[in-house]
Amino acid sequence: MTAVGIDAVEIRTGKLELDLAETFAPAKGEDPGKYTKGLGLHSSSFPDAYEDIVTMGANAAHRLMERKGLEPDDIGRIDVATESAFDNSKPVSTYIAGCLEQVYDGDFHHANKGERKFACVAGTQSIDDAYNWIRAGRHRGRKAIVVATDTALYARGDPGEATQGAGAVALLIGEDPNLVELSPEQGFGSADETDFLKPNQQFPSVDGKRSVQVYLARMREAVEDFESVWGEIEPGDFTLVPFHTPFPGMVRKAALLGFRHITRDTHIEEELAAEIGRQPRAEAFDDEAAFRDAISEYTDKLKETETYAAWYDDVIDPTLTISREVGNWYTGSVHVARVSGLKQALEAGEDLTGERLLVGSYGSGAQAEIHAETVQPGWEDEIAELNVDEQLESRYAISFEEYEHIHDVHNHDTDTQADAEEFTTPDAEFVFDGWGRMGERKYRYVE
Amino acid sequence: MTAVGIDAVEIRTGKLELDLAETFAPAKGEDPGKYTKGLGLHSSSFPDAYEDIVTMGANAAHRLMERKGLEPDDIGRIDVATESAFDNSKPVSTYIAGCLEQVYDGDFHHANKGERKFACVAGTQSIDDAYNWIRAGRHRGRKAIVVATDTALYARGDPGEATQGAGAVALLIGEDPNLVELSPEQGFGSADETDFLKPNQQFPSVDGKRSVQVYLARMREAVEDFESVWGEIEPGDFTLVPFHTPFPGMVRKAALLGFRHITRDTHIEEELAAEIGRQPRAEAFDDEAAFRDAISEYTDKLKETETYAAWYDDVIDPTLTISREVGNWYTGSVHVARVSGLKQALEAGEDLTGERLLVGSYGSGAQAEIHAETVQPGWEDEIAELNVDEQLESRYAISFEEYEHIHDVHNHDTDTQADAEEFTTPDAEFVFDGWGRMGERKYRYVE
Repeated sequence: MTAVGIDAVEIRTGKLELDLAETFAPAKGEDPGKYTKGLGLHSSSFPDAYEDIVTMGANAAHRLMERKGLEPDDIGRIDVATESAFDNSKPVSTYIAGCLEQVYDGDFHHANKGERKFACVAGTQSIDDAYNWIRAGRHRGRKAIVVATDTALYARGDPGEATQGAGAVALLIGEDPNLVELSPEQGFGSADETDFLKPNQQFPSVDGKRSVQVYLARMREAVEDFESVWGEIEPGDFTLVPFHTPFPGMVRKAALLGFRHITRDTHIEEELAAEIGRQPRAEAFDDEAAFRDAISEYTDKLKETETYAAWYDDVIDPTLTISREVGNWYTGSVHVARVSGLKQALEAGEDLTGERLLVGSYGSGAQAEIHAETVQPGWEDEIAELNVDEQLESRYAISFEEYEHIHDVHNHDTDTQADAEEFTTPDAEFVFDGWGRMGERKYRYVE
Repeated sequence: MTAVGIDAVEIRTGKLELDLAETFAPAKGEDPGKYTKGLGLHSSSFPDAYEDIVTMGANAAHRLMERKGLEPDDIGRIDVATESAFDNSKPVSTYIAGCLEQVYDGDFHHANKGERKFACVAGTQSIDDAYNWIRAGRHRGRKAIVVATDTALYARGDPGEATQGAGAVALLIGEDPNLVELSPEQGFGSADETDFLKPNQQFPSVDGKRSVQVYLARMREAVEDFESVWGEIEPGDFTLVPFHTPFPGMVRKAALLGFRHITRDTHIEEELAAEIGRQPRAEAFDDEAAFRDAISEYTDKLKETETYAAWYDDVIDPTLTISREVGNWYTGSVHVARVSGLKQALEAGEDLTGERLLVGSYGSGAQAEIHAETVQPGWEDEIAELNVDEQLESRYAISFEEYEHIHDVHNHDTDTQADAEEFTTPDAEFVFDGWGRMGERKYRYVE
């Protein structure tokens, strides 16, 4: 069976940077540690006034096509995943294709364009669609571009405000991929939840505590479903485990519970038994509350073990490096985590070819999806081509007043974007160019 | 290769009926013929106050599961296509699954749930996703439920107001289907168009004239793309040709241009030559305008031929019967057209087993998709099980004042739904049950 997976990836960050410790915390009268230690975040990315989900997505896709030497005819589908759409009918993929057609001779008229919405999990769902399309033999030798693009804004003053972020990830899905092969096996954990939603509104309503519980519960179900087709998994099976990262602190929780789950009934549990005992089993307890207390106590001890800390440092921590600097990108977040982990490995000189990743995607509302990936021989070249460090370094650091301005600019209920103040100067990229007569957003390429 | 396609289908109409000739036209001071002849529409369906895209979709899916003897464990994915979503993050499929879980012992926790948006074409795109998932071998023997559900409302006084409608189509996608097998071949015609859009608004901005042109242009591209993989097509190849039907008048235009396109360079063109001449060829004209005039003249004559009229009556007209009574259902519309055509054939005692359909889906913004279907031996039983006639007959006919009330009830900017007047009484169905504390819509099953 021909390998199908991610051939290449590009990351495009919003060009503005809000420093949480230096700028946001003082303005809020908060201890910076609340953000840097509690959430694990240092900065958030924001789009400049001429950026939005279309420009970030189109600029990422453009660099992807240029770098891989692709023409529009090579692309059979363009799928966009977002929960920041600005139209209830016309999909963002048509706008992105329209941008790209401004700079290529060919067109995407025979490419299938789509848009998926399911909170932060739709990016992975769109990769699945592209994978299945190729496996179904309907691609006619062409590849798919998947763009996960979001501007994650909360209402000002909302507890989630510190976890904002904005950026796009463009992924090229094809046969014999350079980066990672995707497993046919998938696991799902999905339920009708009210943890985070946006009922006819741009900014989310969030039940923060419930949201964390739901993330963990659905992820656990997805792991169990995945194991039912893949077989039992153990910590040593996967070199990196990129999770959806709304903020690194969430992943710290998920990783700990995941480790506990996959070490149960393994030699690792036995080896740790002398130090912290065996994992509590429900059948040994008369009541649920006592069992839960025991589990909680075991988990606290597990976290302090050298075994767990070493696994976390190797397998989880490298996936969080970029996230700490950019905040939550919703649909793009888990794909940033994958890149982050591979980039750390490249910089450490590790050879990951043939190694496996376990990828944990999640969207509120709620659904978790687990799948595996196998790193391909071309991974080092693909990761070495990224310019994410340059992008992050060249961001413009905004003051709190500038943050308030840019938040208003991107608020759909305000009407300030067309003549809004810009903090950076566009250079060889797609930019927002005002509204047309039917309320459509227009774009142009700036040389 | 195992056949994959549509195993069963259910249609659920909104329970209210607005008669365009008797009620709408007089209130607008218009000639009824503007609607019944011009648009080809007699009535529109509207949801009662306790109905919406979730209840219509869940009620259709429920009847589908009951009729086919399915339990939640038999379903591996629930995909919803809509351009009437009321949440920018949480997908409608989670609400529909939540409804169904109220009436089944099992749950859909390991089913992948999704939501697609691309105007009216997303229903077919969701069927494609399900087909590809099965062909990719990721379904573990399970089937997919695809729900295309919309409440197609325009601003009051908008020229599109007479084409409104509301309803859901639920389709079961699986191996060895009872109804139709889907072709692996697909054709796409797709461009970044501003014909119909909803920029941060519930009701569409429409350029009516442009919208018709774009429909025809994209459909033509899709047919050409389809022919590049399927081979040249001729009118006699397909027993029925269901098109996306915003209103039957649109399909009349599309069918005529489609017939002209697929008869070019065929024996049909030759046979018609004595009567109306051969089709004009661009190379025979010095300028584009003269060529277009000649094409237009030929098309007018073609429309009056017995050859064309007989084809239209056999292949197109049967697909429009239900549409005339319900209006535009957006994502569900082309799937209503398929059912309509098959139902007419069943009632006429025709045996369609092994016959082929050519299906023309379309979404503004804009994209057309063409694929073929082969009617399966179980089609008569499946179509005979539909209760669409009973549903249509039992609709409550609303006065113009009642229409204005119900339009307000379903306007997201008004807040009247929770205690709105109902015109019918729910019976053994899911109903809207008010809003929860986070603004989520709640539902319950009424025995």
